[in-house]
Amino acid sequence: MDRLSVNQRTVRSWGVRELADGCARHGIGAVGLWREPVAEFGLARAAKLTRDAGLRVSSLCRGGFFSRPGWLDDNRAAIDEAAALGAACLVLVVGGLPDNSKKLSAARDHMRDAIAQLEPYARDRAVRLALEPMHPMYCADRGVLSTLGQALDVAGEHPPGAVGVMIDTFHLWWDPEVETRIATAGRANRIAGFQVSDFLMPLPADVLLGRAMMGDGVVDFGPMCRAVSAAGYAGDVEVEIFNADVWAADPAGVLALLKDRYETLIANHLDQSFEMLR
Amino acid sequence: MDRLSVNQRTVRSWGVRELADGCARHGIGAVGLWREPVAEFGLARAAKLTRDAGLRVSSLCRGGFFSRPGWLDDNRAAIDEAAALGAACLVLVVGGLPDNSKKLSAARDHMRDAIAQLEPYARDRAVRLALEPMHPMYCADRGVLSTLGQALDVAGEHPPGAVGVMIDTFHLWWDPEVETRIATAGRANRIAGFQVSDFLMPLPADVLLGRAMMGDGVVDFGPMCRAVSAAGYAGDVEVEIFNADVWAADPAGVLALLKDRYETLIANHLDQSFEMLR
Repeated sequence: MDRLSVNQRTVRSWGVRELADGCARHGIGAVGLWREPVAEFGLARAAKLTRDAGLRVSSLCRGGFFSRPGWLDDNRAAIDEAAALGAACLVLVVGGLPDNSKKLSAARDHMRDAIAQLEPYARDRAVRLALEPMHPMYCADRGVLSTLGQALDVAGEHPPGAVGVMIDTFHLWWDPEVETRIATAGRANRIAGFQVSDFLMPLPADVLLGRAMMGDGVVDFGPMCRAVSAAGYAGDVEVEIFNADVWAADPAGVLALLKDRYETLIANHLDQSFEMLR
Repeated sequence: MDRLSVNQRTVRSWGVRELADGCARHGIGAVGLWREPVAEFGLARAAKLTRDAGLRVSSLCRGGFFSRPGWLDDNRAAIDEAAALGAACLVLVVGGLPDNSKKLSAARDHMRDAIAQLEPYARDRAVRLALEPMHPMYCADRGVLSTLGQALDVAGEHPPGAVGVMIDTFHLWWDPEVETRIATAGRANRIAGFQVSDFLMPLPADVLLGRAMMGDGVVDFGPMCRAVSAAGYAGDVEVEIFNADVWAADPAGVLALLKDRYETLIANHLDQSFEMLR
């Protein structure tokens, strides 16, 4: 259970303190934090609280959105916050098409430029940027970074310690090349984080809420988990779920269920791979 | 306008005769037919009617759905119908995960086997199978074939005249490798057809109706159209739209609008590429 991390958005009604307390009660070793509730609680207080509770911060969500005005200052602030929290990475949701534009290729060029502009600032503060390839249904409005292969291409322009990739089962499960690319990412030391959640079918009317508790969707977790493990990733496994039913449920119950599903659907594949590697 | 083809589902309230009459009135050179309305009208009658009207049949929709019981007989029937209609290809929507299964990798293996089983039957009848990679949001329920690269891999196991790929802007616009793969497909003589429609944002509650009239969504048609043209494809350009508003509109008006959008958003890119090639 020590590698398990709970992303704050999974238990959305909890603030930083409730999350830290809940994880401590359940023996969960890490949390993924979001900038808004951290700001609400106070950055320094949140850093001290997680440190005192012995919790790792597996990620800070999120920077990116390079198509929005003010993106540079906002991302620098996010990097400062990630540094203060000692987060393993800052997740970058790179943003979609700018308003009224259909120039996907230009948006992708701008993404590369933006990352190149941010990278020295992040490196100076020892913050690792995690490029998150997103499901193609979000290409226009959330992220023009659509495959792990593409994310690795972009990351490859920078040192591995400064720019890695976030591997998320929800976004990547469909990709026929995902296992190959995970192996490549491992060899290149580019795996900055591993997020798990399921893919709901049918999709809800708001596709942003198409994530589900592991086991409640269509994802076959075994192959991806084994690939990530075989690629040498030994970091935190962060559960990030945006789902109306999960949000409506009692957060303490969500944590209990999440631990159970993690154990039966995720952890066994991670362990098996480590066995195989030994 | 001669390369323009109208897929029957775009003007869903029209039967085969209305479609043929509408295309004749508008100087449209080809139609994409669907098996159900063709069966309703009569296969032999539909074949004669399109032939007498001087219309090419750019595709028959659709075979595939290999996860359903009875798929083999049903696909053989579809091949016979495509042969009777003289269709340029039979579009294969390969199907999603079988009921209650999450074994994506097994479903993909089964797809390869199914195509290998069908291919000799299709070749004997001079019917070209068109593998259609589908948007990843349909991976679980419609098509485990998700990228053009994957479709080319599967097609590559068979002769190009027997198995090609359907390039559809709606399904493929987001793919960072789509232009490269289109070039590969052209070199390998694998482009069996080209379908155009736009990608609606935000997606409607039923994501199957996420297609839109060209210009009403987020797709940048230029790069893909130029790539298809540069790849040597000189066949029909078929407009296929599943969209509640388009279906509610007067079909004659839809045809007029579609011609206009084709001219301003599609045909100019095709022509330019041919100019460049000359």
